[in-house]
Amino acid sequence: MARKTGSHSEITGPKVREAALSLFAQHGFAAVSMRQIAAEVGVQAGALYLYTKDKQSLLYDLMQAHMDELLAAWRDEPKGNDALSRLEAFARFHIRFHLERPDAVFIAYMELRNLSDENFANVETLRRRYESELEAILRAGQAEGVITAPDVRLTTMALIAMLTGVNTWYREGGRLSRDAVADIYWDMVRGAVGA
Amino acid sequence: MARKTGSHSEITGPKVREAALSLFAQHGFAAVSMRQIAAEVGVQAGALYLYTKDKQSLLYDLMQAHMDELLAAWRDEPKGNDALSRLEAFARFHIRFHLERPDAVFIAYMELRNLSDENFANVETLRRRYESELEAILRAGQAEGVITAPDVRLTTMALIAMLTGVNTWYREGGRLSRDAVADIYWDMVRGAVGA
Repeated sequence: MARKTGSHSEITGPKVREAALSLFAQHGFAAVSMRQIAAEVGVQAGALYLYTKDKQSLLYDLMQAHMDELLAAWRDEPKGNDALSRLEAFARFHIRFHLERPDAVFIAYMELRNLSDENFANVETLRRRYESELEAILRAGQAEGVITAPDVRLTTMALIAMLTGVNTWYREGGRLSRDAVADIYWDMVRGAVGA
Repeated sequence: MARKTGSHSEITGPKVREAALSLFAQHGFAAVSMRQIAAEVGVQAGALYLYTKDKQSLLYDLMQAHMDELLAAWRDEPKGNDALSRLEAFARFHIRFHLERPDAVFIAYMELRNLSDENFANVETLRRRYESELEAILRAGQAEGVITAPDVRLTTMALIAMLTGVNTWYREGGRLSRDAVADIYWDMVRGAVGA
């Protein structure tokens, strides 16, 4: 392993990812150099390569970590046993999780085109895994007879787009709390699936 | 006016915008140089400046033109007199218009951060104008008693995010036609507003 271990890398690794996340979100992946990331961390450009192979690896690490975190957080989220409770849990979870990390979400959507083919395929697999969680809820709801979704795949994509969209307009300290927004969106989600 | 007039510029102006649109969509605004745009058009880099002041102007022109076209197309769209017919017209129009110009839509969302403050404010004004068209429909629907929207602004943002989301997954020649997709989305829109 070329990568250094020990306390130095444990401190600097997260710092590198944090700096890259912030710079990519602000300027875009293509516009940011390894030199700029190094300057933000406070190390020489050469030192960065002890922690990451290249800028592509850094982008992929960020996007993969974001999806892993999303899947793990949803797995640990308390949810009821019936489809409608699970759908409500999903809607509220999705809004909360995404509002908490705007930069990571922004990059996850904006920078897909800058991933190498192999990295893109891996991120897509993780994304599909998350989408299939919602698909399973919708199918269960149909089986229970409480949900109408003529095309489960389309409904999944429509609901995720609607919920993720909160990130584009929500401002902390605005007229609505996160919970108030989640209440209103949950009503719309329920209506959209005829429940 | 420094800008050239006559047939030469009339031919090359649209070509410049077309080349910029395609290159920005593929690589991102920050990663594309005026030199690359010139090469794509087949002119010297210096010649580009006869048609546009700089790369920022080019980006702004593209985004402003996209919004102007959107507003004009919606104004000309046939729509019924009652709120529910107008809502259906809006949903189907929005999906169709956006699916027809994926590059322009992609740029309109992805490159907002790269606009100068003044240009951003102008594009936001146009975007708000479009959103207020949907808001007016929802308010009319509430007045007619056929629509439930506890927060018209949120419902507007939710529906637009849902409808625009089609661009992220729809593939021409896939299992569903555009009309079939619009049918299903219209059902979800109607459900989301309790109609």
